[in-house]
Amino acid sequence: MKKIRYTVPGFKASSVAAGLKKVKCPDMILIFSEKDATVSGVFTTNRVKAAPVLLNMESIKKGKARAIIANAGNANACTGEKGLKNARLTAELAARELGIRPEEVLVASTGVIGAQLDMDKVTRAIPGLVKGLSSDGIVAAAEAIMTTDLFSKISRFEGKAQGTPYRILGIAKGAGMIMPNMATMLCFILSDISIRPSQLQRALLSSVEKTFNRITVDGDTSTNDMVLILANGMAGNNPLKAKDYEEFNLGLRQVMAELSSMIAKDGEGATKLVYIKVKGAASGNDAIMAAREVSNSSLVKTAFYGQDPNWGRIMAVLGRSQIRLKEGEVAIWIDDIKIVERGLSVGTEQEKRAAKRMKNREFSVTIDLGLGEYEYQITTCDLTHDYVSINAEYRT
Amino acid sequence: MKKIRYTVPGFKASSVAAGLKKVKCPDMILIFSEKDATVSGVFTTNRVKAAPVLLNMESIKKGKARAIIANAGNANACTGEKGLKNARLTAELAARELGIRPEEVLVASTGVIGAQLDMDKVTRAIPGLVKGLSSDGIVAAAEAIMTTDLFSKISRFEGKAQGTPYRILGIAKGAGMIMPNMATMLCFILSDISIRPSQLQRALLSSVEKTFNRITVDGDTSTNDMVLILANGMAGNNPLKAKDYEEFNLGLRQVMAELSSMIAKDGEGATKLVYIKVKGAASGNDAIMAAREVSNSSLVKTAFYGQDPNWGRIMAVLGRSQIRLKEGEVAIWIDDIKIVERGLSVGTEQEKRAAKRMKNREFSVTIDLGLGEYEYQITTCDLTHDYVSINAEYRT
Repeated sequence: MKKIRYTVPGFKASSVAAGLKKVKCPDMILIFSEKDATVSGVFTTNRVKAAPVLLNMESIKKGKARAIIANAGNANACTGEKGLKNARLTAELAARELGIRPEEVLVASTGVIGAQLDMDKVTRAIPGLVKGLSSDGIVAAAEAIMTTDLFSKISRFEGKAQGTPYRILGIAKGAGMIMPNMATMLCFILSDISIRPSQLQRALLSSVEKTFNRITVDGDTSTNDMVLILANGMAGNNPLKAKDYEEFNLGLRQVMAELSSMIAKDGEGATKLVYIKVKGAASGNDAIMAAREVSNSSLVKTAFYGQDPNWGRIMAVLGRSQIRLKEGEVAIWIDDIKIVERGLSVGTEQEKRAAKRMKNREFSVTIDLGLGEYEYQITTCDLTHDYVSINAEYRT
Repeated sequence: MKKIRYTVPGFKASSVAAGLKKVKCPDMILIFSEKDATVSGVFTTNRVKAAPVLLNMESIKKGKARAIIANAGNANACTGEKGLKNARLTAELAARELGIRPEEVLVASTGVIGAQLDMDKVTRAIPGLVKGLSSDGIVAAAEAIMTTDLFSKISRFEGKAQGTPYRILGIAKGAGMIMPNMATMLCFILSDISIRPSQLQRALLSSVEKTFNRITVDGDTSTNDMVLILANGMAGNNPLKAKDYEEFNLGLRQVMAELSSMIAKDGEGATKLVYIKVKGAASGNDAIMAAREVSNSSLVKTAFYGQDPNWGRIMAVLGRSQIRLKEGEVAIWIDDIKIVERGLSVGTEQEKRAAKRMKNREFSVTIDLGLGEYEYQITTCDLTHDYVSINAEYRT
């Protein structure tokens, strides 16, 4: 078996143990591009934004970046002016050591909300990060940004643009679409493609909508969520034609879909990965709302955990949501097993078959509202004893 | 100590084991008023309404009722035309046995959604229910309507109207503001006061808004929720003056507040009763939304369970909600211990004190948004391992 090399020409990465996590293990990473990279980013919609989110939203306006410095163990959120100063100082220290400008360094943090960063530790860690940069450091970096994650998340794609090969490589950490305390979802994507900033932005936004915006663990949205993409052009391809852009777009979506799926699978305490598919909605908004409410209901999610095709809970969630609904038109399937028709049970035999299917690690729940043409899908996970343990015991 | 007698002149109640619950124990109750009673009711806002809800919404339009027949073990929700027919038949059978008209009998169900009522069992149970009617049967009835409840819920008030004593007696079952599968909150209130229908309706609506609408266990709204009040006038009081109405209104609110508090305390798996107080909101709606979102966040509720004054989670919930928010204006207290000022931590000493206070069975979380004059309060509970157990394992 050929070993996959997780590298992208012109990018280097490193990680060190700065001592920001409680347990001594790598908790700071640096990603560096040898050349100016085109950058695009998507940030949390939470009005409470972490300091690095606020800083990056400014920095990426120039459209160019050279480096990302990130830490786990402290979110640098709800830290006020001092927090913003510390995020800025982190960028400055890294820039100085790298010999680039501070506004070329993006900053990301994940960890406990409300505590100030220990800048002594950050300062001491930076020379080691710069010294340790290597072209295959990204795998270790993916591990270093983990918090309650059980496994590191990495995905890659190789394509050709105008006959020239290029790569897309992404790493992410999650273990919750959100869990504000661990504040939360970070995703960094590197590519050596040569691409116009507007194209990069368009591809990122459309892929985020189809991937990260369609997973949920507990329905919260963190103060720190961000997806950053850097493209350094080192592949040397000619300008993209429509079909090249399309391929890049699909490749990017594939990488982000894989990473977001890994995040849902690694949802805190999760034992099941569940695809909630809503169709037949009267409007696009109804489809989204129905999928979201079902995906986030504690009662539905505990039923998944219990491997119980408890469709009454799904009906009740649909009923309390604000969507247009005719009880007598609803049909529900577990994978291909129909359990509800015209709002009524298909029978206990089918429910037994569905219960058996729910023993699988992954299954889908399809809800046909029978009212229109609109559909939407969200990936979610179950609500388990371990979710409660992880979230009740985290800070203690 | 004088034994409290849970009776109201002119009302009788009974309970029997009809065999609708899995375990053989009382699961059907009948409440009967010797005289025509003025009736008022409040029903679930869920668009998926159980058959008895639909039936009662019709029946109470006449403003008079004589009986309530209720069962636990089966919600008669998502049961279509047949379910409605069964609810109607239940009322008819009880009416015939009692010698009254079917539309004078209100019906309530709680239990599994989506299964048809076993009408043979219901039919066989009714003669025994009528035979067993007794003036102190209400305590046993409060026990018979329990599902996952750990204790029965009963509350009483005695007042005087125009010098004449009267009583208000309420029973409820909950164990969730809602838990659709156990579909869910039922509350029956009996009084011998003589009161105009419009006054009864007004008192009920205002009290529901201040009590049952301000508790939450898991943020869902059941298909079966209902509060019914019957006033039979047997106290023989003269028409109420303003101050008599006020006293009745306060008495009713006291009974409903006590019952709703019992429901939150008995929230599935709950170990903590938590009062979420929002003040300083820019609008009434903002105050309600902030209190609701914080009360229903899985992350906040697991932190309560973990006795962790994890204010970062509260800030993140406020940030993702749609309310007006200035991060730098927010203050948060656990009881009287301030842990957040101007959006920042007051310090670890205060957090330690707050953590200690959170060991109590009950505490409050006060959030001052610092933007306006509006406030709202919701009673909630923590999210525990037992909640997951109860809801994952219920049907299996």
